[in-house]
Amino acid sequence: MSKHALRIIPLGGLGEVGKNMMVYEYGREAMIVDTGLMFPENDMLGVDYIIPDLHYLKDKTDWVKGIVITHGHEDHIGAIQHVLDMVQAPVYATALTRGLIEAKLARNGGLNKANLNTVHAGETIKIGPFHVEFIHVSHSVPDGVALGIQTPAGLLVHTADFKFDQTPVDNWPTDFARLASLSEKGVLALLSDSTNSVRASWTPSERVIDGALDEIFSEAQGRIIVASFASLISRMQQVVNAASQHGRKITFAGTSMVDNVKIASKLGYLDISDQEQVPLDQALKMPDDQIVIMCTGSQGEPGSILGRLSTDRYYQFNIQEGDTVILSSHPIPGNEETVFRTINRLFRRGASVFYEEIAPVHVSGHASQEELKMMINLVKPKYLIPIHGELRHLKQHAEIGRRVGIPTENIFVIENGQVLEIEDGQARLGERVPGTYVFVEGADVQEISTNVMRERENLSQSGLVLVKLNLNEQTGKLRGEPEITTYGFILKPDNTITELVVNNLSRANGNLQQSLQKAIQSYLYEETRRRPMVFVTVNRV
Amino acid sequence: MSKHALRIIPLGGLGEVGKNMMVYEYGREAMIVDTGLMFPENDMLGVDYIIPDLHYLKDKTDWVKGIVITHGHEDHIGAIQHVLDMVQAPVYATALTRGLIEAKLARNGGLNKANLNTVHAGETIKIGPFHVEFIHVSHSVPDGVALGIQTPAGLLVHTADFKFDQTPVDNWPTDFARLASLSEKGVLALLSDSTNSVRASWTPSERVIDGALDEIFSEAQGRIIVASFASLISRMQQVVNAASQHGRKITFAGTSMVDNVKIASKLGYLDISDQEQVPLDQALKMPDDQIVIMCTGSQGEPGSILGRLSTDRYYQFNIQEGDTVILSSHPIPGNEETVFRTINRLFRRGASVFYEEIAPVHVSGHASQEELKMMINLVKPKYLIPIHGELRHLKQHAEIGRRVGIPTENIFVIENGQVLEIEDGQARLGERVPGTYVFVEGADVQEISTNVMRERENLSQSGLVLVKLNLNEQTGKLRGEPEITTYGFILKPDNTITELVVNNLSRANGNLQQSLQKAIQSYLYEETRRRPMVFVTVNRV
Repeated sequence: MSKHALRIIPLGGLGEVGKNMMVYEYGREAMIVDTGLMFPENDMLGVDYIIPDLHYLKDKTDWVKGIVITHGHEDHIGAIQHVLDMVQAPVYATALTRGLIEAKLARNGGLNKANLNTVHAGETIKIGPFHVEFIHVSHSVPDGVALGIQTPAGLLVHTADFKFDQTPVDNWPTDFARLASLSEKGVLALLSDSTNSVRASWTPSERVIDGALDEIFSEAQGRIIVASFASLISRMQQVVNAASQHGRKITFAGTSMVDNVKIASKLGYLDISDQEQVPLDQALKMPDDQIVIMCTGSQGEPGSILGRLSTDRYYQFNIQEGDTVILSSHPIPGNEETVFRTINRLFRRGASVFYEEIAPVHVSGHASQEELKMMINLVKPKYLIPIHGELRHLKQHAEIGRRVGIPTENIFVIENGQVLEIEDGQARLGERVPGTYVFVEGADVQEISTNVMRERENLSQSGLVLVKLNLNEQTGKLRGEPEITTYGFILKPDNTITELVVNNLSRANGNLQQSLQKAIQSYLYEETRRRPMVFVTVNRV
Repeated sequence: MSKHALRIIPLGGLGEVGKNMMVYEYGREAMIVDTGLMFPENDMLGVDYIIPDLHYLKDKTDWVKGIVITHGHEDHIGAIQHVLDMVQAPVYATALTRGLIEAKLARNGGLNKANLNTVHAGETIKIGPFHVEFIHVSHSVPDGVALGIQTPAGLLVHTADFKFDQTPVDNWPTDFARLASLSEKGVLALLSDSTNSVRASWTPSERVIDGALDEIFSEAQGRIIVASFASLISRMQQVVNAASQHGRKITFAGTSMVDNVKIASKLGYLDISDQEQVPLDQALKMPDDQIVIMCTGSQGEPGSILGRLSTDRYYQFNIQEGDTVILSSHPIPGNEETVFRTINRLFRRGASVFYEEIAPVHVSGHASQEELKMMINLVKPKYLIPIHGELRHLKQHAEIGRRVGIPTENIFVIENGQVLEIEDGQARLGERVPGTYVFVEGADVQEISTNVMRERENLSQSGLVLVKLNLNEQTGKLRGEPEITTYGFILKPDNTITELVVNNLSRANGNLQQSLQKAIQSYLYEETRRRPMVFVTVNRV
């Protein structure tokens, strides 16, 4: 590796490329952009969440001169305490993003040792060899920024999550002028959000939701319950506005949502008066047609408020005939089944349920194909590096780049761990840095062990059978019946296992326990076509 | 219950309503419509597939005068051997559907005792007190039928799965005239497909796929691999046609696909000549740009051909740079993650991958909102009974019915197990018959045991810890160290468990094994915030 090359390193295992964390490095100085978490896939059994593999940084923590957070979503801030445990560098974020980070660190006890700094869109700061300009972009959380990064190897634009909403709820559209003016300086590489690269056309403005809310609020006779993400501050504003217009008070349920309302209204990102809101217990005593309850659980998480409401396990109130429930959200891939099950349950309890498929109660926060083309044409980069997406999204973004006129050889589709080097105005693939998923489970942070995961998978498929037997120490003969315990498996009562044990006692050569396990396993497979785990303990008494 | 009431009973637990099986009953005579299976949801651990609960029929198997199968998809025929094991009644199906049933029963050894009868669209047969007319409908498998059921209580129309494709691949559109003419006789109730009731507009014609295939085939330089369902006979025809037009030979891979090609071409539902196809091993020796391989695995199933190709585990060939892969399918809800992972893997191996989101390579086989309105207006029923869908789909179909002018009180949204009675031209809710999911696992057919499922869930989250210890029979003291085995759980090596055992030996009152299990469990929870299963075996020696 040349010491005059800029090195761009997306980290994060097989997850979305560069979504959770990227490292920009020049010489022996580096900058981290975003420190997010990933949610586990359905077959990642027992995993709470996933963080980027920080191994790459382990022996160069002192290289890191700063950590920049582009916006306040979990997939960009959620791993910050893990990163700060390892890297003591100043964190830079806009006011709302900083507020959300503070709340997060406060919950995890990491707030006092963190060096947090507020930046503003339009401002430029110096982080090691990089001059980083913060450029306002619209997204589904306010105060998001793209980055203009002036490096010794040239000027980069890192869009982070964005859309080109011309009429955003906070009336603060993406700073087109600034993006365009960067192109005059000559942008070497554009690293741009690929999340919606498979979606044709433009993403609708958040404003379309106002109309849908107005219509649903007009029809609703009883209580209105709106579920969304706790970080969707602009959606909160829209629901607050709709409640006011329809003479209803709003109340918020769920710790993270209540926290975020406080932060956002204190910092001026949420316009809500004391007259407009009431506490939940008070709201529940008011007439049904005078309240709106906003809560979490739009992904159908069983422990969330909406999840509990759908199964009648929320302690504050139950869903009743006449309630109107709005899921103002999109199922995160892999959650479709859970979300739809929750919707069915809410219907079953008598609610009218509105969700993205049947009413425009949600729009995406990410740029669609025409916006991605617009970004390329505004920035006019030499190189296009699709980030923020699975491989299929990056490939489609590359195709969009080609259509807009970027030569194929100037488009780099790279995955996490693939270093991209830029030197003398030329980009090239560097080495691959090792990296994988790092799973967080309860109090444990550990690298994936394929073995452990496979063992859980085995257990989950057919459960287990424990067989305990006593052998006479002198004769080697069975004493009494084997004790059989099953867990997650149903065993038909018969004597076969005892017979198997007796027969194998004489035949077994070598390890008796193992040969019994094998014999019982193949008997069970023959009988049931299932392969439960079998554990035998042999006692000689 | 009145003996002059017609009783309509959808069976199938919490699955899609009436999708897999419906019973029509009058007096002591009954008819079954469809005998399908459901695929398990992601949290139904270890389950192969799900069949309707047949308990309701157990003591009235002799009531059943016939079984009608509307079309050849798994969710309508897949449980037939289980039903025939219990109910010895003649089966009626159109030629292709019968062919697919025969192949299925042949694999399961149930063919010789089945009484299968071929019917034709346009024909009417008598089944007990019912006169059943078969009315051709277009769907994604050819030879599907809706049913006009003349009952002593009035005329019903049961649409089964349908769409109004004006230009279907087999040039045989839905029989609009016949449906319309039934309305002249006066249709009492319409039971209609709700699968796509949340989709606006009309479902596109299967023909749009021809254009997409033509475009992709024109661009492809290497091999073309098309993955789809084995039962999508019309899709096979489209791929055969595209291959011919582009001078490529076609080959089929996968037992079920090869079987279905034989059945469909023998029965005249697939137009393919010997010159057009070659066996797979021969195809693999031909130049890459002269072959098309059609295979199964469009749902990303790890054991399917496409699943194996994506992980380099298919024994016949590997994906190579220059291959073009087309997934001509839509992810079944819950499979999104697996399908997209497969697509990413295929891209990673160098293929160009086309799928529904980025190219019109698949269209739905079910009617969208405008078609559902059309069906209601063609049939002009007094009552609308939405079937084939989750509750949210039925609710939306009910809303569509209201918009078309069916009075709210004439729309019955019922779930599986809810009996609907019709007498003297009036419909009313009857009793609920007990019913649940019946899981098929390997050789076992059993009702859901929430316990077993919960045990598997527990095991899958944090694995298990087995602790075996020997106590001195006389002193009650520990002999040697406890033997600890973990599975699906990582235990940090320390002496705490030994200490816990020693401390608890004296303190434990009552069941030593249970109190040790509890003590170890709470220690592990304190340490790791995880709750692995803990099993202790105590031997006194």
